Amino acid sequence: MRLAILSAIAVPVAVFGVAASYSAASGAPPQNASPIYGVTIPDGYRDWKFVAPAQEAPPLDELRAVLGNDIAIDAYKKGTLPFPDGSILVKLAYKRKQSTEFPPATVPGAPTTVQVMVKDSKKYPDSHGWGFGRFIDGKPVDIAQHETCLACHTERVKDHDYVFTRYAP
Amino acid sequence: MRLAILSAIAVPVAVFGVAASYSAASGAPPQNASPIYGVTIPDGYRDWKFVAPAQEAPPLDELRAVLGNDIAIDAYKKGTLPFPDGSILVKLAYKRKQSTEFPPATVPGAPTTVQVMVKDSKKYPDSHGWGFGRFIDGKPVDIAQHETCLACHTERVKDHDYVFTRYAP
Repeated sequence: MRLAILSAIAVPVAVFGVAASYSAASGAPPQNASPIYGVTIPDGYRDWKFVAPAQEAPPLDELRAVLGNDIAIDAYKKGTLPFPDGSILVKLAYKRKQSTEFPPATVPGAPTTVQVMVKDSKKYPDSHGWGFGRFIDGKPVDIAQHETCLACHTERVKDHDYVFTRYAP
Repeated sequence: MRLAILSAIAVPVAVFGVAASYSAASGAPPQNASPIYGVTIPDGYRDWKFVAPAQEAPPLDELRAVLGNDIAIDAYKKGTLPFPDGSILVKLAYKRKQSTEFPPATVPGAPTTVQVMVKDSKKYPDSHGWGFGRFIDGKPVDIAQHETCLACHTERVKDHDYVFTRYAP
C-alpha cells in the first residue's frame, strides 16, 4: 500500500523532470549533460578500444587511460586529422595507488573523473568542432571547470586537432 | 629478372623454415613462441578491451596497460575465478616519457615489452593453467626470463588466480 502511494507520487515528478530538461528550448541538454556543450557519458564506453595510458603528476597523482569509439580509433590508425564527426574519446582517471602485491607498481585506486570529447563540427563550430564533458560520479562538474577545457586544448594541441592523446603502438 | 631469381631462392627456404618448426615433434611451438610455454602474441590483441593501467617504478619506469579478450573481460565483469580456459591477457608496456604539451603528464614513449598470459588448463597443468610469454619487438625473450613468471605470480597473487591486474571501473 505504501509502495503504491509512493509510485503514484513518483510518476508525475519523473515526468515533470524530463519535461523540464527538454521543454525550455530546442536543443536543451539532457540530464547529466555537461554545461556549455551538453555532452553526456556515452553508453558502453568502457568496452571501447584502447588509445593510450598516461600518468598525471601530484597533486592529482592519477593513472589515466583514453578509450575511443570505432570512428576515433579508425582515425587514429589511419592518421586522419582532423578527427571525423562522430569521433568520441573518453578518458578514465584513477587515483594512483601503491600495489600491495608488487611493490614496484602503482595501480588504479579510486576513480576520479571521466572526461569526454565529442567531435561534431555542426554542433560545436565555436570550439573547433569538439564538445567537452567532465564528470565525477556520473555528474558533470560545474561551468567554471568546463570553461578551462577549450582554452587549454586550443593553446597546446592545435596541431593535433586539439587532442592531446596519441595512439600508443 | 633479379626479383624473379630472389623469389625462386626464397620459396624453398620459407617452406623449409615452416617444416623445421613443426616437424620435430607434435606440439612443437610455432616460430616466435615463448620458451617453456609456446605462447605467441595473439592476432588482433591491440583492439581488445581495456582492463586497467599501471605504472612501473624506475629503473623500468614504464606506463602499462592490460587488455583482455572477450572471455577474459567477461570473467572480470562477472568476478569469475579461476579465469576460464580461453582467457587471454596482454600487457603493453612503454617507457614513461614527459609530455612536451602538458607538463604535469607523462605519456607512452618507446614500447618495451608485450606480455601475454593464456589460460589453458589442459595444456598448462603445471603452471596453474597459465602459459606465459614475454616479447620484445615481437620476439620472445630468453628462457631465464620466462622462468621468473610462474614463481612471481604463484608467490604473489594465488588468491586472484595468479593474475595481478584487476579490472578498473
